[in-house]
Amino acid sequence: MTSEKRASCGLEWRVVITGGASEELVPESGLIRRAWLGILGLILGLKLKVWKFLERTWKVGVDDPRRVIHCLKVGISLTLVTLFYYLRPLYDGVGGTAMWAVMTVVVIFEYTVGATLYKGLNRGMATLLAGCLAVGVHSLASRSGDTAEPIVLGISVFLIASAATFSRFMPTVKTCFDYGAMIFILTFSLVAISGYRVDKLIDMAHQRLSTIAIGGSMCFLVSMLVFPVWAGDDLHLFVTRNMKKLANSLDGCVAEYFNDSQSDTDEEEPCQKSQGYKCVLNSKAAEESLANFARWEPAHGRFGFRYPWKQYLKIGSAMRYCACCVEALNASINSEIKAPEFMKKYLSSACLRLSYNSSNVLRELAESTKNMRKSSSIDVLIEEMNSAIEDVQNALKSLPHQVIQPPPPPQIEAAEKEKLQFIPTRSLPLIDVMPLATIVSLLIEIASRIEGIVDEVDELAGLVDFKPAMDEKPKQNQPTIKTHSEEQGQQEDIKALQKV
Amino acid sequence: MTSEKRASCGLEWRVVITGGASEELVPESGLIRRAWLGILGLILGLKLKVWKFLERTWKVGVDDPRRVIHCLKVGISLTLVTLFYYLRPLYDGVGGTAMWAVMTVVVIFEYTVGATLYKGLNRGMATLLAGCLAVGVHSLASRSGDTAEPIVLGISVFLIASAATFSRFMPTVKTCFDYGAMIFILTFSLVAISGYRVDKLIDMAHQRLSTIAIGGSMCFLVSMLVFPVWAGDDLHLFVTRNMKKLANSLDGCVAEYFNDSQSDTDEEEPCQKSQGYKCVLNSKAAEESLANFARWEPAHGRFGFRYPWKQYLKIGSAMRYCACCVEALNASINSEIKAPEFMKKYLSSACLRLSYNSSNVLRELAESTKNMRKSSSIDVLIEEMNSAIEDVQNALKSLPHQVIQPPPPPQIEAAEKEKLQFIPTRSLPLIDVMPLATIVSLLIEIASRIEGIVDEVDELAGLVDFKPAMDEKPKQNQPTIKTHSEEQGQQEDIKALQKV
Repeated sequence: MTSEKRASCGLEWRVVITGGASEELVPESGLIRRAWLGILGLILGLKLKVWKFLERTWKVGVDDPRRVIHCLKVGISLTLVTLFYYLRPLYDGVGGTAMWAVMTVVVIFEYTVGATLYKGLNRGMATLLAGCLAVGVHSLASRSGDTAEPIVLGISVFLIASAATFSRFMPTVKTCFDYGAMIFILTFSLVAISGYRVDKLIDMAHQRLSTIAIGGSMCFLVSMLVFPVWAGDDLHLFVTRNMKKLANSLDGCVAEYFNDSQSDTDEEEPCQKSQGYKCVLNSKAAEESLANFARWEPAHGRFGFRYPWKQYLKIGSAMRYCACCVEALNASINSEIKAPEFMKKYLSSACLRLSYNSSNVLRELAESTKNMRKSSSIDVLIEEMNSAIEDVQNALKSLPHQVIQPPPPPQIEAAEKEKLQFIPTRSLPLIDVMPLATIVSLLIEIASRIEGIVDEVDELAGLVDFKPAMDEKPKQNQPTIKTHSEEQGQQEDIKALQKV
Repeated sequence: MTSEKRASCGLEWRVVITGGASEELVPESGLIRRAWLGILGLILGLKLKVWKFLERTWKVGVDDPRRVIHCLKVGISLTLVTLFYYLRPLYDGVGGTAMWAVMTVVVIFEYTVGATLYKGLNRGMATLLAGCLAVGVHSLASRSGDTAEPIVLGISVFLIASAATFSRFMPTVKTCFDYGAMIFILTFSLVAISGYRVDKLIDMAHQRLSTIAIGGSMCFLVSMLVFPVWAGDDLHLFVTRNMKKLANSLDGCVAEYFNDSQSDTDEEEPCQKSQGYKCVLNSKAAEESLANFARWEPAHGRFGFRYPWKQYLKIGSAMRYCACCVEALNASINSEIKAPEFMKKYLSSACLRLSYNSSNVLRELAESTKNMRKSSSIDVLIEEMNSAIEDVQNALKSLPHQVIQPPPPPQIEAAEKEKLQFIPTRSLPLIDVMPLATIVSLLIEIASRIEGIVDEVDELAGLVDFKPAMDEKPKQNQPTIKTHSEEQGQQEDIKALQKV
């Protein structure tokens, strides 16, 4: 207890001097030293925190440099607007029109063009509508006498505000006009209770609307012309990237299971790769928000007017549906019950081929969607996938004959014997084959869900008229994840096994 | 072709008169009639649309009547604020302070208390901070001479706006202070470029802040005291409801598969019930937004200060992890490959018991979380679930002996013969048992994932000190989805099968 107290009260230093003797440093100038150390620790801690903060900030910028450009765009627009209104002779302080231009720029300018247009158009339309309605109510109220005026105003504000607030709960309004509904209430209330006469009101509204229009159109122009970030482009890339991630996950998972012994050297990569399906599973909110903003964007690049952005949501939904199965596959692969090694080996080639073909279809779909070009090889790839499914099913059908094969006769060669050493003479309990059966069945299910994605992409291709396929390089277009010799080896492997 | 043209040009009416003869109505006054019919159709169409719109609106209100109350709250608050500022003697038009009170109410008042507090506190803090900073910059600029003033102002607006915009990309700022960052830029720009002298600025800021404070605190009070909608309560209910949905889905799926023949009468219900896992899969965004707002709420009801709302996100994540497996289970159940009937029957009881026990654990968790009370029966239920897993595994282990059972001797009874008619004399190919093996393996995986949910709920119970369990009715507390006799029958069924 006392030593504890002592330790907490004063620092003790015991220094080993080169001679070998140790000397206890008496805390003579203890207070100053402690204060100094405390300050030093504080500074170091602060430095570390600042450093970490800067590191994180740097990462945010490096992850997507367009963010930095966006910030500069906002800064420049705002500076221009403020200085324009600051320097112009009509300037009359914050209460004047300058305020509305600044407010418009700050409130409207969003990261993507679509979001900026959504907010800007919502704001403009809502202000106009609410302004007209409010002028009507205002003139009605002012004609109804001094006593009735506040009553008419109060009732109208109550009714309009309640109804507009309720409309924000309607799904259509919520996705497309939520911001507009808020601005509608705001403008209506402000104009309705204003004390001006109607003719002055209209004059003021005209001035204010033109200021808002100037601020708004500057935002639109800067947002669309200076390094534009299109929500549509982002959605397009997001969905195609997710397809690739799903393909990598599938490959990673299956390879991890069947090539256990082979992948010791590059353990890091497949682990990270095979987690990509999690991004797909969590992509719903991001996709919906991007699709929501994309529909406000004008025709740009390869995306025409009334581009079917909603179809991307369907593709995304089909991918999440598939990713769910990859998740379950991942769980089965990490299951505690291990399948008999000989059975795993027997099914390995067929399963690897199925997963390879399935992920190839996904990769080809991603390429085709990304380039908005019909794929020349997708039909072949789907056929290959389906034949891989059949191969897996055939392998399964012929499996029990292998399993209950009688022990090899004594005159058999040694090599042959080694091959068969794992094969038991009796049928296996179902529990031993369960994880493997689950993996195979999930692989088949994943392949059928990939066909669902193919259908959705086909629908997109029909809706937006994908360009015809480039016929000159149908094979180069086809992505490869394994070297040719590897694939050949695998195919031979499968044939050899099928002969057995 | 001609008849087509004729049909499109004029409507033809053929009326069967009671005598039996049919008469063709010649379009004498065709134009008037068509116009009339067109108008009638238009009116009817409009009526139908208005009716549908009203129906949808009604549904939005009926689904959650708190929404209607919220709208009335907003309407009343806004009316009170506008009338107060309209009637008070200091009134000086829209440009005056009235505007800020109205704006505050419209912009801040959100559906949940948490969202209102988030916006209000963000707005207040950001206005205060930006105001102070802007007054400093303003006085610095005004002292630097007429030429340098706009340069100093321009640079400061550019730097502050860019930095604040960038901060909105930082994850922490994005979740907690996104709105504040926007208001910060707005206030800073407005105050920095204002043409007033510093002493007048401070006076004005004081007046404006007090108006905002009045508007804001009215929002807070109305939002918290009049039929409050707490984001925290909603999150709590949302998570517990999802647990129940997951339990129902699991029961529904498994019952659908194993009780195929029995559930012909009540087909509707299990179908709808078994789709509940989809709600769980799509719950991420809603949970995050609720948890985000909930942390701004003060202590209320059973939820104390610094309540660990983040733990609900972990529970939600564990549930989605489990729901993914239910999704895969659902797919396996609807698989085209049908398992041999005798095998399905053999495993039916054990699987039904496992799913029943698993969903019971979920239901008990939901009850325990909902009442924030430790469960007296959860340990027993988990044990039962684990023993059900073991039973399923044992059933699987003993299965092949059944499968390769020799054909029954001729002297066997007819009834016994019928029982065995599906049992083949040789081992089955793996492909036939695959769907069943997948279902069983997914059921086991789901049970293990439910334990993950149990762990997260346990952590929550530790963090917020759940009340001790009510010992007086440990059995009544346990939810039942089947009648006692049904359960007993099932248990006997399992025992009988285990004896075979």
